[in-house]
Amino acid sequence: MTRFPAVKTLDDVRSLFRTLPGPDVDAETLALEREPQLTKPAGALGRLEELSAWLSAWQGRHPPRIDKPTARVFAGAHGVTRHGISAYPAEVTAQMVANFETGGAAINQLCRLFDVELAIHAVDLEHPTRDIVQAPAMDEHDFVAAFSLGMNAVDSNSDLLCLGEMGIGNTTAAAAVAHALYRGAATDWTGPGTGIQEDALAVKAGVVAEAVQLHNGFVADPLDALRRLGGRELAAMAGAVVAARLARVPVLLDGFVCTTAAAALEAYAPGALDHCQVGHLSPEPGHRRVLERLGKRPLLDLDMRLGEASGAVLAVAVAKAAAECHAGMATFRQAGVADKA
Amino acid sequence: MTRFPAVKTLDDVRSLFRTLPGPDVDAETLALEREPQLTKPAGALGRLEELSAWLSAWQGRHPPRIDKPTARVFAGAHGVTRHGISAYPAEVTAQMVANFETGGAAINQLCRLFDVELAIHAVDLEHPTRDIVQAPAMDEHDFVAAFSLGMNAVDSNSDLLCLGEMGIGNTTAAAAVAHALYRGAATDWTGPGTGIQEDALAVKAGVVAEAVQLHNGFVADPLDALRRLGGRELAAMAGAVVAARLARVPVLLDGFVCTTAAAALEAYAPGALDHCQVGHLSPEPGHRRVLERLGKRPLLDLDMRLGEASGAVLAVAVAKAAAECHAGMATFRQAGVADKA
Repeated sequence: MTRFPAVKTLDDVRSLFRTLPGPDVDAETLALEREPQLTKPAGALGRLEELSAWLSAWQGRHPPRIDKPTARVFAGAHGVTRHGISAYPAEVTAQMVANFETGGAAINQLCRLFDVELAIHAVDLEHPTRDIVQAPAMDEHDFVAAFSLGMNAVDSNSDLLCLGEMGIGNTTAAAAVAHALYRGAATDWTGPGTGIQEDALAVKAGVVAEAVQLHNGFVADPLDALRRLGGRELAAMAGAVVAARLARVPVLLDGFVCTTAAAALEAYAPGALDHCQVGHLSPEPGHRRVLERLGKRPLLDLDMRLGEASGAVLAVAVAKAAAECHAGMATFRQAGVADKA
Repeated sequence: MTRFPAVKTLDDVRSLFRTLPGPDVDAETLALEREPQLTKPAGALGRLEELSAWLSAWQGRHPPRIDKPTARVFAGAHGVTRHGISAYPAEVTAQMVANFETGGAAINQLCRLFDVELAIHAVDLEHPTRDIVQAPAMDEHDFVAAFSLGMNAVDSNSDLLCLGEMGIGNTTAAAAVAHALYRGAATDWTGPGTGIQEDALAVKAGVVAEAVQLHNGFVADPLDALRRLGGRELAAMAGAVVAARLARVPVLLDGFVCTTAAAALEAYAPGALDHCQVGHLSPEPGHRRVLERLGKRPLLDLDMRLGEASGAVLAVAVAKAAAECHAGMATFRQAGVADKA
């Protein structure tokens, strides 16, 4: 396993971005050269073909393989829940962590089905972040600790990492981060989350607007936006994205909260998410908008809005399909199939 | 295994539609009652929740299971290829059948990956259908023989059937069938198929228009449209759809050719495709239009346009995810998770 650089300060985090490796162009080229030889019309496997090249580039090997996919789910507690911005009480976060541990959640079924190794990290649930309407969610120490925890949760021997989260209140935090990163109106980024009704939605948008206004002078640095408006699980996911890049592990992001945490990295250092694909599109309205800003097209669109890395892990099936077709198909020459009219 | 009724004439085929079973409402109700008890916000698994209810209804059991998924790929040869409407020579159909048999095609990799049992049926490849610009593709005997072959290819012990095809020239045949079923312009239904260029595309649309004009007086019956303008693999897929309904096996349709063959059944007897979902959306432009007419939303949209049941088999992963989550997740009560604010 790769030892990741220790990070103690926000400056340590910033310095990581100076060492991010690029794609393995040789492996990618081998994939691009093999693809048109396979027994199918050029381009007929669509995005599976793109995925084969992308996996090669970021695994740094050809053919790409998915032998050891992993999922890391981070849970965090949010002080902002005091404003009644969720359909569920704050205790549900810890209750769901227990459900993950005993195998009863959706993500457990999906990981078993697709042979994805799952680990859950409850990030300091006893200490909810501060209410973002009143103060920064985390001080520098807490933010860096969560970021570092996320880094060290990454298995550098994995060949595909799925990221996800659980945290009552965290679509509010994510909406505030997105609003700080991309501006627009607070209502652009605020959605029903676990399923709040119209009145509560207006309250939630008001909380998002107020929080961003409070921190407005301090969020020009996207990492500071993540610290002030996000949550521990968002910081941890961001750390995991960076660690995966350092370890050459391609990443599947999940829905709105996960993608928004990662988006802060891209805003800080363009290209920082080149090793990431987005597993699925959530109906949470902010997700589509963040994806537009990132220029990323999700792999699946199944109206899922659960979090827990569920959309990312389901997309592992698509990535495996890509790798299996690329590696296993016969070439026109091998199969004796005519490849031109 | 269910013995399917023998069909010898087009009237025998028509009589099958009088005996199509409906959904198992009891099993579906059990699924709908269990779903809101599972540890997730209501609706958070999106289309996976719909699939669980649909699988229950059409497998006739609760919880639904996908223990024995199957794929049936039918290949046919088309007289219409003489007009140069494909990027590949007609011989490629038989060459690809050989590639399927030796495991070198995309569908072989996908079936292995998702544990789907695959069988290939080359339907009378030595006898291409007649050129649809000049004559009906098949006489009644040939059509019914192909339809019957498709019926008998269905394993009634399967719990999910994926259908697909291979046949150089068959997007032309499918475009003609769709044009006969739904009218509009020939260009609405004609696309690049395996990848023809602009000039050849105009020729292809002309062939589609001419064929439909020739048979215009005889295609008020959608089954006759399929016989006159389709192909043996389209007739076989239609037969398989009907047999699956009789045997209570839910079906995943594939792309444009497969969906169009099935669409003839729906046009003949509305509701005939209620036991079918569509695995994916093909970029072949006619596919979206046929799906609109059928009111069906595909499960995946990955720019795949290969045929071979590849999109249907990839969607097995989604169906399995639905069944596993539905059966395996803990309820709020079991997990001790609060289910309301």
